[in-house]
Amino acid sequence: MTTNISMEVILCIVIAIAVLALLYAFNLFQAVRRENAGTKRMRALSSYIHEGAMAFLTREYRVVLIFGLIVIMLLAGLGFIPSLRGIDGVGINGAICFLFGTLFSGLAGFVGMQAATNANAKVAQAAREGGMPSALHVAFNGGSVLGISVVGFGLLGLASLFLIFTFVLGDPRQAVPVVAGYSLGCSFIALFARVGGGIYTKAADVGADLVGKVEAGIPEDDPRNPAVIADNVGDNVGDIAGMGSDLCESYVGAIVSSISLGLTVTLSGVDYSIQAAIFPFAVAGVGIIAAILAQLFVRMKRWEQPQKALNIATYVATGIVVVSGFVLSTMFFGDFKPFLCITTGLIVGILLGQIAEYYTSDSYPKVKEIASESQTGHATNIIAGFSTGMESTLLTVLVLVIGIVLSYMFFGMYGIGLGAVGMLSTCGITVSVDAYGPIADNAGGIAEMSHLDPHVREITDHLDSVGNTTAAIGKGFCIGSAAFTALAMIVAFANAASLESISLLQPGVLVAVLFGAMLPYFFTALTIRSVGKAANHMINEVRRQFKEDPGILEGTTKPDYAGCVDISTRAALKEMIVPGCIAIVSPIAVGILLGCQGLGGMLMGALVSAIMLAVFMANSGGAWDNAKKFIESGQFGGKGSDAHKAAVTGDTVGDPFKDTAGPAMDILIKLMSVISLMLAPVLVQMTPILNFLFQ
Amino acid sequence: MTTNISMEVILCIVIAIAVLALLYAFNLFQAVRRENAGTKRMRALSSYIHEGAMAFLTREYRVVLIFGLIVIMLLAGLGFIPSLRGIDGVGINGAICFLFGTLFSGLAGFVGMQAATNANAKVAQAAREGGMPSALHVAFNGGSVLGISVVGFGLLGLASLFLIFTFVLGDPRQAVPVVAGYSLGCSFIALFARVGGGIYTKAADVGADLVGKVEAGIPEDDPRNPAVIADNVGDNVGDIAGMGSDLCESYVGAIVSSISLGLTVTLSGVDYSIQAAIFPFAVAGVGIIAAILAQLFVRMKRWEQPQKALNIATYVATGIVVVSGFVLSTMFFGDFKPFLCITTGLIVGILLGQIAEYYTSDSYPKVKEIASESQTGHATNIIAGFSTGMESTLLTVLVLVIGIVLSYMFFGMYGIGLGAVGMLSTCGITVSVDAYGPIADNAGGIAEMSHLDPHVREITDHLDSVGNTTAAIGKGFCIGSAAFTALAMIVAFANAASLESISLLQPGVLVAVLFGAMLPYFFTALTIRSVGKAANHMINEVRRQFKEDPGILEGTTKPDYAGCVDISTRAALKEMIVPGCIAIVSPIAVGILLGCQGLGGMLMGALVSAIMLAVFMANSGGAWDNAKKFIESGQFGGKGSDAHKAAVTGDTVGDPFKDTAGPAMDILIKLMSVISLMLAPVLVQMTPILNFLFQ
Repeated sequence: MTTNISMEVILCIVIAIAVLALLYAFNLFQAVRRENAGTKRMRALSSYIHEGAMAFLTREYRVVLIFGLIVIMLLAGLGFIPSLRGIDGVGINGAICFLFGTLFSGLAGFVGMQAATNANAKVAQAAREGGMPSALHVAFNGGSVLGISVVGFGLLGLASLFLIFTFVLGDPRQAVPVVAGYSLGCSFIALFARVGGGIYTKAADVGADLVGKVEAGIPEDDPRNPAVIADNVGDNVGDIAGMGSDLCESYVGAIVSSISLGLTVTLSGVDYSIQAAIFPFAVAGVGIIAAILAQLFVRMKRWEQPQKALNIATYVATGIVVVSGFVLSTMFFGDFKPFLCITTGLIVGILLGQIAEYYTSDSYPKVKEIASESQTGHATNIIAGFSTGMESTLLTVLVLVIGIVLSYMFFGMYGIGLGAVGMLSTCGITVSVDAYGPIADNAGGIAEMSHLDPHVREITDHLDSVGNTTAAIGKGFCIGSAAFTALAMIVAFANAASLESISLLQPGVLVAVLFGAMLPYFFTALTIRSVGKAANHMINEVRRQFKEDPGILEGTTKPDYAGCVDISTRAALKEMIVPGCIAIVSPIAVGILLGCQGLGGMLMGALVSAIMLAVFMANSGGAWDNAKKFIESGQFGGKGSDAHKAAVTGDTVGDPFKDTAGPAMDILIKLMSVISLMLAPVLVQMTPILNFLFQ
Repeated sequence: MTTNISMEVILCIVIAIAVLALLYAFNLFQAVRRENAGTKRMRALSSYIHEGAMAFLTREYRVVLIFGLIVIMLLAGLGFIPSLRGIDGVGINGAICFLFGTLFSGLAGFVGMQAATNANAKVAQAAREGGMPSALHVAFNGGSVLGISVVGFGLLGLASLFLIFTFVLGDPRQAVPVVAGYSLGCSFIALFARVGGGIYTKAADVGADLVGKVEAGIPEDDPRNPAVIADNVGDNVGDIAGMGSDLCESYVGAIVSSISLGLTVTLSGVDYSIQAAIFPFAVAGVGIIAAILAQLFVRMKRWEQPQKALNIATYVATGIVVVSGFVLSTMFFGDFKPFLCITTGLIVGILLGQIAEYYTSDSYPKVKEIASESQTGHATNIIAGFSTGMESTLLTVLVLVIGIVLSYMFFGMYGIGLGAVGMLSTCGITVSVDAYGPIADNAGGIAEMSHLDPHVREITDHLDSVGNTTAAIGKGFCIGSAAFTALAMIVAFANAASLESISLLQPGVLVAVLFGAMLPYFFTALTIRSVGKAANHMINEVRRQFKEDPGILEGTTKPDYAGCVDISTRAALKEMIVPGCIAIVSPIAVGILLGCQGLGGMLMGALVSAIMLAVFMANSGGAWDNAKKFIESGQFGGKGSDAHKAAVTGDTVGDPFKDTAGPAMDILIKLMSVISLMLAPVLVQMTPILNFLFQ
């Protein structure tokens, strides 16, 4: 193929696919809007949740605006420093890309939240009218709006900017560091959505449970609980906007680092750099088509078993990517090695999800063991969950290691980038499946609060329990894809900094690795503590409302839902500032002190440490959660037994693990990596302050 | 100085110091033996504990014998492989050194245990007769037997073997890999003593508490509890033999790696290799003298405040080492840089202890916070302790990093080795202070079980509470010294393997780092689970005894103490096989698969991951423990309150953290490092199986 024209053609096709995907998402959204939202009470509850979620988003985006402007000014300002002129990544161009990154990732989250909070009551209503198949249909449609939006917006922005800046700067090599700014923008949104959202959701959850269930003795999802709406909003904030922005960041980051690594690719001495740079776009484009086709495939039938429908959606999308990956691979390279990398990534992603399921589902022995250990008390429950999470790192790391080895064996460092792109190519469907969970969860809450027929609650409960499984699988996938993406990004960073090696025998690297490995621990300490603090605010507010207006508990007055939503929102955004600043300042400070080699060491130390903690916390948390549910299903004494009390302790400990601190790890490593990638050209011009550590 | 003769002279002086130290320890031991052991009942209880401890040691050493013989045959056998002939580290010589390492380290533990289990009743009796000063005197003497034995035996064996093999092989350069076998022998004993002992002590503790305190409702240290002797034995097994062998391993390892690094030292172009190789011995020798002088200093006075006496002992020893370190430094090198490295190590050691104290003592806010969080239940107690431990990694890592940077700045890689030697030079007094704690604890137990006057219990309680502080400080010191030693050893390994770099940009290094970072997690999962299993055996045995002989609870029949001791012993030794094999097999397997570069990566990954986990677990565990004690002192409702129940949960979770899994991290990283150091010359002769990962 003659490179230059084809590159533009392919990018245009990819852009067209992204636009079509967004139109499809819009169409889905309209379909969700047209559904019947049920009784007046259901509509009212849904609108409370909707308003709460939008209140959070608005407030969040306002904070993003302030901090984003600072970043934009910094990026643009760096371009005016004489010695940095001509460095493509910083300056006005980088700032523009950053702006679009925040805009598009923010838009994807906004649209997804609109759809999700619009769909919840309609899922409950569909369950009333048409049973399981209808309810699944609406819930999956709602989730798919986020899924398709994430990949649509993510790819649209990236491909357009890459095309434009290749044209403007005249060389794709110069365009890469510029579009890295787009990736930084996505990371930036993810930081707020995932970390802030994680604090929000657990503060509301813990607050609602502690005062409502434990102190006032009212059931979960009881409309008399002032924090109940905040709790439902939290599901959307954490698991819709947070999860979507997390995977959007991985998705964009994987493509950016692959392009960057691809631009040095040769095959048997022939320059294949342009093909290698475009190939990730092509795979992503095919992935979007695959996601839409899988979505349509599921819509064609009426499913009684939601798990089966969701599995089939994933398999269909994966199958399409594998087959077309083979075609694209031979078309672009006349070689099937890139196809093997893509497939490796896909398989790693699926395996990571299954390992997570093994350790967190009560169909397997680990969760049963934790449930059984709950019989001897709180401490043995905690210890069992703790060691289960720690144990789960073994298989996870082995799969990651084998994936890295194979990808590298097939196509060197570029292969690792392709592995990440492959894993994330089905992101459209993964996010859709993942986002369906919180919608079903909300639907259940609305059904409960609206006193709907028990069989409606049965359907939503079943949808929700499937959602728990998909959430666990999704978490494994998020961590794995973040690890692969961050890894590819660190390699791209080393390329950008022209590093020959990052040797652990250099004392500067060594101390940086140590420091980097510590960051995830400190970050975890901060986020977990933030949940506690925010939950305390919430507890005080609920207590205050109960005390000042006894009518609330009697059911005669409506509690002040908005007050609780407001407290969660404020606390979440306030509490995420410090961890956020650490994530941003650390790579800059280490880069200045220890230079690019040291920074590379810090990133790698943080990466391995964050992977372990993320896997451990996600799986411990998931296992505790399901051990509790297992006991509630009537095992070991069932609800109210001592074993159940111990299991509730584990579940409460696990909540901030799996929904706040664990997912925050994904953001931490990706954000630090992309900042480093952007900074690399600046740092290579400077002499590190502690340069004597590299002699 | 003319190198060759002086080297022998200095080594002879060091050997003489070590012998004198052992004579001093023998003298101390005799002094302890001459003390009055009190009433018949006290003597009987002491002898139960003594017999139980010896039963564990005998059984442990039998297992050590079997596994040790395998290692000896392997080491010796490798020497017969033609291509490996002429490699000094393996073969008969290495096997001999290994044998002496196990013997001397084993002897130190044995003597220390004899003294400690002999001293316990005498401390109680001394408290009856002479009050606090007498009790402190006996307890500190008992602890000092271990402290002085550890450094005496450790240094005696190492210096003698180094002298002999330098003479036999004609070159100190060839002697270093051989005496690394001595270090391996010490590591081997430490593995059994620390990991096995850690499982033993917590299995007995949890077993005794759960059935005794919770089910049967009898107080702690009640002689009717069949597991009470096993519990007291456990304190000796874990905190005397385990801690002693841990620090013995660090002590020997630090010297070995410094010699190894020293043999390439030049100053302004002049070869200073012999001086650099002998200097660590000289510092160690001075350290022993300092420890003995500090010991004598404390013995001179009658102390009413034990904490003050122990602090002064540490300061005196540190002061002596600093002053004589300056003299030695100028004498050996005509330069004060080595002195600066030594001092850096000493200060880092002290700071790490103080950080540990800050996070685990109820004089500081963190523990109070955990206690306060216990008021809202088990889960908030766990979360608060968890985040406290995680937070403590920040300061710990910063101190370590600054220590490494300074040591390197002063004297390159050799400086890092000297930092480790400096930190460990006062090991004699650190171990003495540390070992005093469990003796005081046992004395309290015997006082309680013998129904002595409450004022005796008051004295032993005060001694014990000081012991808790010294234990926390000691744990911080153990981790720090293990980290510094392992680091020096990894650098020595890289030297031995002639590695120019261990680059994180090599995929082989990268996957090895990932794998290495996972090992401490998996190891922790295994050891924590082992405690659970062993504790279950113990619980069943205690229940069985209570059921079969109701006379036990009535106080009319003596329970079968030996049965419980036997169960703990068997379980501990059985449960440590798998983690032990992982620690031994991992470096060998990775070395064969990925070669020396990969192995270096694995060691570094394991090192950083293990440091974080060790610090986190030790400080979480210590903080939970003292939060419970803080509540028991009457805060937040005191004993029996809901806050107390929650705090007991935290304490129980923390027990295997701080006393089993945490300390096991020290062993894991040192053992893997020393195995790698021994293997390096063998591995460099082989092509790694996955060699393509380094191209």
